Amino acid sequence: MPLTLEQFNAASPAEALALLDGLYEHSPWIAEQALAQRPFRTLAHLKHALAQVVRTAGPDAKLGLIRAHPELAGKAMVAQNLTAESTNEQSKAGLTQCTPEEFARIQQLNADYNARFGFPFILAVRGPRGAGLNKQQIIDTFARRLDNHPEFEVAEALRNIHRIAEIRLADKFAAEPVLGNDVWDWHEKLAEHSDPGFAEKGQLTVTYLTDAHRACAQRISHWMRDCGFDEVEVDAVGNVVGRYHPAPDAAQGKYLMTGSHYDTVRNGGKYDGRLGIFVPMACVRELHRAGRRLPFGIEVIAFAEEEGQRYKATFLGSGALIGHFNPAWLDQKDADGVTMRAAMQHAGLCIDDITKLQRDPAQYLGFIEVHIEQGPVLNELDLPLGVVTSINGGVRFVGEMIGTASHAGTTPMDRRRDAAVAVAELALYIEQRAAQDGDSVGTIGLLNVPGGSINVVPGRCQFSLDLRAPTDPQRDALVRDVLDQLGQIAARRGLRNTLEQSMRAAAAPSAPALQHHWERAVDHLGVPVFRMPSGAGHDAMKLHEIMPQAMLFVRGENSGISHNPLESTTNNDMQLAVDAFTQVLHQLAEETHP
Amino acid sequence: MPLTLEQFNAASPAEALALLDGLYEHSPWIAEQALAQRPFRTLAHLKHALAQVVRTAGPDAKLGLIRAHPELAGKAMVAQNLTAESTNEQSKAGLTQCTPEEFARIQQLNADYNARFGFPFILAVRGPRGAGLNKQQIIDTFARRLDNHPEFEVAEALRNIHRIAEIRLADKFAAEPVLGNDVWDWHEKLAEHSDPGFAEKGQLTVTYLTDAHRACAQRISHWMRDCGFDEVEVDAVGNVVGRYHPAPDAAQGKYLMTGSHYDTVRNGGKYDGRLGIFVPMACVRELHRAGRRLPFGIEVIAFAEEEGQRYKATFLGSGALIGHFNPAWLDQKDADGVTMRAAMQHAGLCIDDITKLQRDPAQYLGFIEVHIEQGPVLNELDLPLGVVTSINGGVRFVGEMIGTASHAGTTPMDRRRDAAVAVAELALYIEQRAAQDGDSVGTIGLLNVPGGSINVVPGRCQFSLDLRAPTDPQRDALVRDVLDQLGQIAARRGLRNTLEQSMRAAAAPSAPALQHHWERAVDHLGVPVFRMPSGAGHDAMKLHEIMPQAMLFVRGENSGISHNPLESTTNNDMQLAVDAFTQVLHQLAEETHP
Repeated sequence: MPLTLEQFNAASPAEALALLDGLYEHSPWIAEQALAQRPFRTLAHLKHALAQVVRTAGPDAKLGLIRAHPELAGKAMVAQNLTAESTNEQSKAGLTQCTPEEFARIQQLNADYNARFGFPFILAVRGPRGAGLNKQQIIDTFARRLDNHPEFEVAEALRNIHRIAEIRLADKFAAEPVLGNDVWDWHEKLAEHSDPGFAEKGQLTVTYLTDAHRACAQRISHWMRDCGFDEVEVDAVGNVVGRYHPAPDAAQGKYLMTGSHYDTVRNGGKYDGRLGIFVPMACVRELHRAGRRLPFGIEVIAFAEEEGQRYKATFLGSGALIGHFNPAWLDQKDADGVTMRAAMQHAGLCIDDITKLQRDPAQYLGFIEVHIEQGPVLNELDLPLGVVTSINGGVRFVGEMIGTASHAGTTPMDRRRDAAVAVAELALYIEQRAAQDGDSVGTIGLLNVPGGSINVVPGRCQFSLDLRAPTDPQRDALVRDVLDQLGQIAARRGLRNTLEQSMRAAAAPSAPALQHHWERAVDHLGVPVFRMPSGAGHDAMKLHEIMPQAMLFVRGENSGISHNPLESTTNNDMQLAVDAFTQVLHQLAEETHP
Repeated sequence: MPLTLEQFNAASPAEALALLDGLYEHSPWIAEQALAQRPFRTLAHLKHALAQVVRTAGPDAKLGLIRAHPELAGKAMVAQNLTAESTNEQSKAGLTQCTPEEFARIQQLNADYNARFGFPFILAVRGPRGAGLNKQQIIDTFARRLDNHPEFEVAEALRNIHRIAEIRLADKFAAEPVLGNDVWDWHEKLAEHSDPGFAEKGQLTVTYLTDAHRACAQRISHWMRDCGFDEVEVDAVGNVVGRYHPAPDAAQGKYLMTGSHYDTVRNGGKYDGRLGIFVPMACVRELHRAGRRLPFGIEVIAFAEEEGQRYKATFLGSGALIGHFNPAWLDQKDADGVTMRAAMQHAGLCIDDITKLQRDPAQYLGFIEVHIEQGPVLNELDLPLGVVTSINGGVRFVGEMIGTASHAGTTPMDRRRDAAVAVAELALYIEQRAAQDGDSVGTIGLLNVPGGSINVVPGRCQFSLDLRAPTDPQRDALVRDVLDQLGQIAARRGLRNTLEQSMRAAAAPSAPALQHHWERAVDHLGVPVFRMPSGAGHDAMKLHEIMPQAMLFVRGENSGISHNPLESTTNNDMQLAVDAFTQVLHQLAEETHP
């Protein structure tokens, strides 16, 4: 008989402690302290309480927890002696069948890891889907994490320990994240399609209107039909649009629009964009299965193009819905000389109909979007979900500092016009100026001394600026200060510089009512409500221009890395996203039908 | 009748002023103030006094002097109206025969230049040899100088004005720098030989034992014979060694060793190294012409390899003389897979004899070397010569800072591990730490974020360190502080870094007695004695290990740029170098034969 949360909440302290036995290796103190917070509203609530106990523990307690775990290679060798749960984890991870080479490799990694960090390597070998990592994934992760900073690696080990506990907890409570698993599996299947040149290397790349891209559209449209959407179409720019009709008796028959993009960057992650398609798809399927209609319709859109990779036409998909399709784009050529017009014709899209895609805001409740965070914040704070307060406005520049190249040995320090040191000075200024705002960010991502030599004072230094803030005035003040400083540095050092603005995007603050719906939904799940700006741009920025919008962020593993194959989240976090989305639908339904 | 310095010194102030009329365009105040310092010991002394008047004048006076000059394009059009001197300058520069396209180009450059700087473009059109620049050289210089910083361009205009005055003065005093011209012409002729791939592009590249390199050796050996050297040979590593015997009655018959290298970097300058061969060659020729022997012999060596371009065997030529030839080098391959052994055999060099090249210090007075400064100091101070106090010791490192690449929009400032900002912090530290010593230098010449993107926080940043100081303890303290700081920055920012030492050279302080000979010689010429360290390494560093050494630096034009086709010096400065070398020979002769 699986355990229920009611039983657990009602149990005596000793019984409750016994029920959580083995959750954290040889560390009953964690459960003990967390139990003081009973009753727990949800398992997510319990998990958060446990993680908070560890977060607030001292460094010795954390290290003790980590050191309570056996070595990975040791585990592999003594698989026969493991407990039932461990054997299960072990066999799912396939580590019981190591070749002698693999075993030797793991032994070496263990030795190196121990020498570097002083504690054993901890990995949740059942992985983000709970189904088990394969040996290669384990070894690759091991090797990668060896490069981490020690302080960071302690935190990463603890995150893996929490993930192990989460999986064990799901087993104890028979709380398999069924919808999260489905969402996970859709991502996995969709990722089978990748552009030529990348597919062969096992890399995911889906750019506008390639064969892989068109295959993705087909897959998504079939799945939407299977989920019970009433209408599904690929529109004139390649967006896949699924509509789930409102209840027949709905007074207004407005729609809630949601969705995200299915194109990717080159060698990108599987979840960026797509999570915002599959989460609402799962919700609609559940409504359909239950035979339930809401007082509003749901329009889920899989946007065809957001990343601007094949053509420089970022947000083409969502932009088309607000009348922002630029006809000049049609003459743009890709790297092979294929115009966008030709690509659209080849895909059977009807260019003349693009203008008809423009939506009438009066027919919509607004736009909500689920997206993987693409940043480290939730991961670091052990929080599965974040409510977005604003999509940051940003400005980008590309420039070059120009001084005088000279001999590194013969040019005295006070006679140099060193272009690189000038950019270095700017980099440090940006770092402190952006930090001063608390939530602004500033980055020099491109930095290069072209044709530099070890013994030549840099005469040129190329650099970029990327400056963002949650509001336009805050962004503009940041930009003004940085450009002032650039001018001062160049003047003081006797240098000149070029600077070209390559992008400017307005901030998109969330609509308070929709944001509040996300906040209530997250709270309903027993998860702390955490508000944060979105540093990255999203399709919601486009819809923002004509209707209220608000976004929900889902924690990314691996420090929230994105635009990278290591991008990941878990089946449990996906389940929470589906639950939160469903909750928002309920709330909106109550509001519409009071 | 040409003017003599005696006449000039004896003339009344009004007469003296009239004698200098036209030296500086419409600016008699310069001559007026300089005249107060009569009598002048040499023309160099007079020139220095004139330049000092301008140096110490206020900014308005300097601008007034510059603006007193006509525009270049204007000059070209009104050539028929020029004074005798100007017409001479003009016709030597070939500017009277502009095509309409060239004229239009010059007009445009004039307009751009005036708009940028607010004064006319001044160029000593008779150039560094006094024989006139061609139209292309003039136009190229014009275009290049448009990019200068305004402050620097004022100084560059004044330097050209001083050069114009120098040439006019030589005309007035019939003081043609005959030996300087010969030295200049030897450089020009030797530069006709260049390695394949560079020769076609008009670039100078002479690397170890190529056909061009072997041709250079032949040329130099022929010229040495023509100059009257008693023995001339190409030795076992390709050095060209010329010996001018001591007087037959010389008691000890020791030799003074001198020389420098004839190989070049890729697309290098014509004077780097070679000046130190041709200056003493001219001196020996004059001794031979006068039938004069000194109480010591003179050994002039054109070193075959100093730059380490074809093979990584820096200072091979001078190193062989102190027993530092490393037999392992013989197996090194060049870019085409040719071993050094094969190259030496192909050149007919006798590898077995290399060990015999080692010199016995007891047979030498010491080593002196003349070299172009390869730095901006003398150029900026309007000084033709500098006495070297020490060849700086140096250490070089190549490293990489490793942080975590992350999304530039989504990673808060306080959660970044930005590798580039860490290197930026180090760059600024090095700048102030090296400046603190006064005569140390520190440079990050290589700086690159590999695979960087405008919207990605740099996870990696490659950099180099080049740290130099006049003494080893000073260098070591600098290196220690910089590496300490690197460690602190990485620790504080949670980064790690690699660092590999790629070079370490000990400082080579000048032998006081030989340095003093250079100082006396420079003073004898009426030129202020300016002491300076050598930031670059030179063959003298090698000889330093077995005998006393001291170097003389000659001013480089164009801010002393080196390892670059723009490297240059003037026939007048070369003449001064020959005069100074001759003076040192006289002084040593007096010392040896009291």
